[in-house]
Amino acid sequence: MVVRNQVLPELHPVSGFSLGTTSAGIKQPGRSDLVVMGLAAGSRCVAVFTRNAFCAAPVTLAREHLEQGQPAYLMINTGNANAGTGESGLRDARRCCEALASLASCTPYEVLPFSTGVIGEPLPADKIITALPAALAQLGEDGWGEAARGILTTDTVAKGATRQFNIGDQVVTITGIAKGSGMIRPDMATMLAFIATDASLDQPALQRCLSAAVEQSFNRITVDGDTSTNDACVLIATAAGQAPALQPGTGDYDTFHAALAEVCVELAQAIVRDGEGATRFVAVEVDGGASREECLQVAYTIAHSPLVKTALFAGDPNWGRILAAVGRAGLPDLDIEAVEIYLDEVCIVRRGARAADYTEAAGQVVMGRDELTIRVVLGRGSSRDVVWTCDFSYDYVRINAEYRT
Amino acid sequence: MVVRNQVLPELHPVSGFSLGTTSAGIKQPGRSDLVVMGLAAGSRCVAVFTRNAFCAAPVTLAREHLEQGQPAYLMINTGNANAGTGESGLRDARRCCEALASLASCTPYEVLPFSTGVIGEPLPADKIITALPAALAQLGEDGWGEAARGILTTDTVAKGATRQFNIGDQVVTITGIAKGSGMIRPDMATMLAFIATDASLDQPALQRCLSAAVEQSFNRITVDGDTSTNDACVLIATAAGQAPALQPGTGDYDTFHAALAEVCVELAQAIVRDGEGATRFVAVEVDGGASREECLQVAYTIAHSPLVKTALFAGDPNWGRILAAVGRAGLPDLDIEAVEIYLDEVCIVRRGARAADYTEAAGQVVMGRDELTIRVVLGRGSSRDVVWTCDFSYDYVRINAEYRT
Repeated sequence: MVVRNQVLPELHPVSGFSLGTTSAGIKQPGRSDLVVMGLAAGSRCVAVFTRNAFCAAPVTLAREHLEQGQPAYLMINTGNANAGTGESGLRDARRCCEALASLASCTPYEVLPFSTGVIGEPLPADKIITALPAALAQLGEDGWGEAARGILTTDTVAKGATRQFNIGDQVVTITGIAKGSGMIRPDMATMLAFIATDASLDQPALQRCLSAAVEQSFNRITVDGDTSTNDACVLIATAAGQAPALQPGTGDYDTFHAALAEVCVELAQAIVRDGEGATRFVAVEVDGGASREECLQVAYTIAHSPLVKTALFAGDPNWGRILAAVGRAGLPDLDIEAVEIYLDEVCIVRRGARAADYTEAAGQVVMGRDELTIRVVLGRGSSRDVVWTCDFSYDYVRINAEYRT
Repeated sequence: MVVRNQVLPELHPVSGFSLGTTSAGIKQPGRSDLVVMGLAAGSRCVAVFTRNAFCAAPVTLAREHLEQGQPAYLMINTGNANAGTGESGLRDARRCCEALASLASCTPYEVLPFSTGVIGEPLPADKIITALPAALAQLGEDGWGEAARGILTTDTVAKGATRQFNIGDQVVTITGIAKGSGMIRPDMATMLAFIATDASLDQPALQRCLSAAVEQSFNRITVDGDTSTNDACVLIATAAGQAPALQPGTGDYDTFHAALAEVCVELAQAIVRDGEGATRFVAVEVDGGASREECLQVAYTIAHSPLVKTALFAGDPNWGRILAAVGRAGLPDLDIEAVEIYLDEVCIVRRGARAADYTEAAGQVVMGRDELTIRVVLGRGSSRDVVWTCDFSYDYVRINAEYRT
């Protein structure tokens, strides 16, 4: 299911960045499941990865390769996560990198591998290696749409975002795609997201931009609280555009940063909108906290509560469950008399109890919406933060009970 | 649904402790929903309560009253939690205590009130007050079975446990009942549990016994990770038996303590077996940790993972999800090479990957059981702990999507 996920927008090509998609037959015959991305010489690539201790073989390898220098290719397969596969998983991923390197005349270190799909099954490396020439043959700067579809697993829609803006009189483009629907509670990383720009930035500035944008986007979403073993978000600056190099501390740099953050937020929200079984898209906003940490603590307690999520599915303004979640979030010396809770514009809790002017009818109106905001005002400071989540439906159970069958 | 919950056993009466149950018409006409318990003079009562900051009015009042001295009566209603009801909720609870005190010729402080049910609705105090004489008329030491049924909400079966053992040549009895099915992740407390014994212990020893037993029973279960606003566990020692007073540090005291712990574990496990929508009862055991805290951290991460819980529902040995949960549990410097994971007797993960001798068929056999143990060996110390949980089914979503309708 999907909550008001727009049709995949027309994605602006990024000069110096090309994508090729094919079917390796990993999941089903004929379904796109292998994507290769090519980076023009002079591109700079930065990435953030999952902090799950059981990180997948491709994550280990991509980290290693990135430390050796700039990549020339990214290689992404869906249908198999190559996680929990130990030494043989690493060997399989290395073999694929070597095959691509040999076809494309680069070193294996210049290939970053990414995998997503079932955990714990051996990677069908031979199928991938056999399909690599077809993927390379498809490489083109207009390949974004096909690639957005080629990286999906249980996702029901392709996810992309794109921005163009001026630096001086030169147009700069940022385009990104992402996948993710379940096992979504990124931690310093995301599910898979690939973003490219033709702007020119040095490596430290690029990494700083990405980390800041990820922190406010992919690191603020949760579908089910389960952090994946394979999360990765990659940002490439090809420097192939005409705009001058961007220097931190300038207005142009800030413009770039803001556009990148917009692309990340749009992609992150698209993942939640397409959350497994999702029927509602919910922002959980916590205001008036003593620190952002405690705002997030309350927001995630609400966003992960199965009782709140099933009430959201039912369209039931069961504010008692929200209140109970706030109460168990572990804030020291919480003064419940100071707490207010809102569903969009409707105040449901004031002074620790149902608001005097609250009516069930008003609550029902908000809960009938497919997008809504739960806002908690803690009344103990001026910090604020927000996370985005979805509801918990029969379909979530069905999708995850049937996933491997 | 219920996982192998035994029929309510024959509960031994406890001398000096009587129970009376009636219908006040709070939920449905004719359904038992009001229980009064009478304590003989000389009884000692101790309790632990929820740590949810939004604790219910009756919890606040019961705490206050217990500080004033020993209670003569406990008064429990189901169908309405009287939580999130602010000042008027406190007034309603006080009115009910006063009504019972006036009928029974004691002070309101000698009445401890307990409520369970929907959060945020005004308590129907008049209905309760009208029904109190009928409940008092039912008071009798053989009233355990009726009371066990009278405190249920979404529970599908009544829950009780009972033990008799000798202190010298005197028989000592411990009997308890509990309710709880959803919003279950007790924190230093439980859903509602009432346990009585005819043994004689002083107040500090009794409190110490209860706290220790609760820590290893009610504080080790989770259905959905949601800590209730109304949790309470009460232990009464009537001292009406013939056994001599129990002194800490003696063998008799240890015998009592062990029996109390058994009663608590049996009641706590009965709550999980009757977890909302539960089809499987699962022990999550973590061994070889550097501390009990980190063992619990890993165990709860697994027990709360919606992906693990839906795989359990499906009977799918999707060990990758267990591995991913261990990986995201936040243990510093976890050496994944040292980690082993078992489903009952079957080793599924060794050295950070699928065990070489694991077969899907062996995993399927274990997952076909309605009771099983997930055991994680961390290989970094000698600490161990266990939590009990259940799976996550369509029925959990149905029950909680329809709860108020």
